[in-house]
Amino acid sequence: LNSKLPRVGTTIFTVMSTLASEKSAVNLGQGFPDFDCDPALVDAVSHAMKSGFNQYPPMPGVPALRQAIATKIGVVYGHQYDPATDITVTAGATQGLLTAIMCAVHPGDEVIVIEPAYDSYVPAIELAGGKPVLVQMVLGANGYSIPWDRIAAAVNSRTRMIMINSPHNPTGSVLGLADIEALKTIVRGTDILILSDEVYEHMVFDGARHESVCRHPELAARAFVVSSFGKTYHVTGWKIGYVAAPPALSAEFRKVHQYSVFTVNTPVQHGIAQYMQNPAPYLDLPAFYQRKRDLFRDGLKNTRFKLLPADGTYFLCVDYSAISSLSEADFAIWLTSEIGVAAIPVSAFYQSPRESGIVRFCFAKQDQTLQLALDRLAKI
Amino acid sequence: LNSKLPRVGTTIFTVMSTLASEKSAVNLGQGFPDFDCDPALVDAVSHAMKSGFNQYPPMPGVPALRQAIATKIGVVYGHQYDPATDITVTAGATQGLLTAIMCAVHPGDEVIVIEPAYDSYVPAIELAGGKPVLVQMVLGANGYSIPWDRIAAAVNSRTRMIMINSPHNPTGSVLGLADIEALKTIVRGTDILILSDEVYEHMVFDGARHESVCRHPELAARAFVVSSFGKTYHVTGWKIGYVAAPPALSAEFRKVHQYSVFTVNTPVQHGIAQYMQNPAPYLDLPAFYQRKRDLFRDGLKNTRFKLLPADGTYFLCVDYSAISSLSEADFAIWLTSEIGVAAIPVSAFYQSPRESGIVRFCFAKQDQTLQLALDRLAKI
Ligand SMILES: CSCCC(=O)C(=O)O
Ligand SMILES: CSCCC(=O)C(=O)O
Repeated sequence: LNSKLPRVGTTIFTVMSTLASEKSAVNLGQGFPDFDCDPALVDAVSHAMKSGFNQYPPMPGVPALRQAIATKIGVVYGHQYDPATDITVTAGATQGLLTAIMCAVHPGDEVIVIEPAYDSYVPAIELAGGKPVLVQMVLGANGYSIPWDRIAAAVNSRTRMIMINSPHNPTGSVLGLADIEALKTIVRGTDILILSDEVYEHMVFDGARHESVCRHPELAARAFVVSSFGKTYHVTGWKIGYVAAPPALSAEFRKVHQYSVFTVNTPVQHGIAQYMQNPAPYLDLPAFYQRKRDLFRDGLKNTRFKLLPADGTYFLCVDYSAISSLSEADFAIWLTSEIGVAAIPVSAFYQSPRESGIVRFCFAKQDQTLQLALDRLAKI
Repeated sequence: LNSKLPRVGTTIFTVMSTLASEKSAVNLGQGFPDFDCDPALVDAVSHAMKSGFNQYPPMPGVPALRQAIATKIGVVYGHQYDPATDITVTAGATQGLLTAIMCAVHPGDEVIVIEPAYDSYVPAIELAGGKPVLVQMVLGANGYSIPWDRIAAAVNSRTRMIMINSPHNPTGSVLGLADIEALKTIVRGTDILILSDEVYEHMVFDGARHESVCRHPELAARAFVVSSFGKTYHVTGWKIGYVAAPPALSAEFRKVHQYSVFTVNTPVQHGIAQYMQNPAPYLDLPAFYQRKRDLFRDGLKNTRFKLLPADGTYFLCVDYSAISSLSEADFAIWLTSEIGVAAIPVSAFYQSPRESGIVRFCFAKQDQTLQLALDRLAKI
């Protein structure tokens, strides 16, 4: 079989999680919480199953859930989406990303991807027959930032889409208003679409606000906005998220969605719809994760790692160049095997090898897990 | 936005379900049970959630579920798949079908599709850049059959895949050994793959056996075999199925799967893995649905519909030409609006309009639902 994705192997997340479990390392690699979700959420889904919500829901999603999503976006970002036409529930954010790309990107179209980038972006573009155009973030004294002049220079008549991701995995950086203005300037007067991966939307720290594309009508009018309940509600294994987009984009999105998964688990949709009636869980999330970030970051100050800014997401990147000159992949393996703490090499988020001496830790872990990791890291 | 699927509108299933509910018609259109699943299955999933199985499972699926699937295939069809390399849990059969097509079909490749065909097949091929080559089943005195000589004639050097579906939606026909032999002869010595949609595998009646591709090593060696727990366990809304294929095919399948949904709901996987320990639910399914088929079929003998054979699936097709000369779509609308029973026009399963005077009823309904429909149909 002639491979459609010849360069794809086992993901770095699986590789590191497997190694972590072989070596009994504390797994701060793959991004998932090691604590459980709210039992009320489990009860809501159980209740939906017991109430007989076990057959096909409408293709774009259970109406109550689409309404709850539209309400949330209205309250938090001040943008009104029509749940009937603009919101589609997806089988996780990954399915939302692929579907948005599949419905919008024709063979030969170019899609601008900003590296480091989540590992599904480039294969998704390739599956659609598109051409990924890679622009790298710049690493300066204040962490990673996007060189908008290079993005502007990468735009041409074949550019169909620009993918953005804020809060950003793996760097933990967040887009500010200046970034949004730069993006607006680039797309103004073009028909370039925006695919905005906002799965960490509720994890922005230090009082900063998440510059969702939904806040900016000029961008929202040409954007697919992707989010994930797995991240927000500590249920990464439930595989449910959504894509919000204006009607014309959502109509094309749904055509592909219909033949991609058709729809998403009914009782989980009902359970989340009910759970969303209370906004506290997502409103409290920044404080919840900021405390964990601070605990972990403060502990790391006793190590030889140099800390990078961690303004959002549940990831924190560190520069290990004072400790080792190994490649990022080798350092992550060494850290897992010899020190007992698994991390992800940031080089895995680039198409062409790029060594910056940086690895990513996930701090979505119980305090005691973070403390155990810190104790081990302090010994280096 | 330039559509990737310009010919796709709302599915016939959604159209007819919506009309049925507007007209308070008995909905024998869209294929889903109007009764609930086994409470033990709900309990198993609830238990998994309460036990904390809420984070990412391994990408190809929870090991216990893959093992249970391999065991079932071994017991029922005598084929040994290795759960580590050959079984991938999917977000429903539709996602399995699209993923198999996306991983195997390159732009320009031809895929033979036998009509009438489930509505996702052709769009899935088009999304992969492939060319659907359509061959129509023949409707004779004994119902629908596949003209293998025409399939053979449609094969050429660009043929990458042949899609088959048995038990067959919408016709209710099942492949026999002669069909399997014909297929073997066609593919022997070629590198043509088989995509076998077997979602109704446990619904074959009158003591016949399902000729799963898994029973035939010569075919299994080149096949993706797709099944659906939604159909087997009366949970169409749970969106979980699997694809079994030899290691080389599964490896390519997983590359696309990883970037399509990454993985499938963890607690549902655990719940089904536990529930599968008891084979009774799927072993009893033929008798369960045969009784419903017989109830419905016997009742229809009091009507002016001519019955087609219904050897498998939970669908039964009828010829209404003694009743009306309306097109199938118009007849289905009339039947829903005026008689109060929704059906699906078989013409919706063809790319080019084709009128045979046949509609499809779904008999996966409570006895009282079937009886109510029969009472209404008898009045025509
Ligand atoms: C789908 S496994 C990867 C989880 C994740 O988002 C990450 O670790 O970056
Ligand atoms: C995904 S809705 C269609 C259900 C079905 O399989 C059918 O009615 O044919």
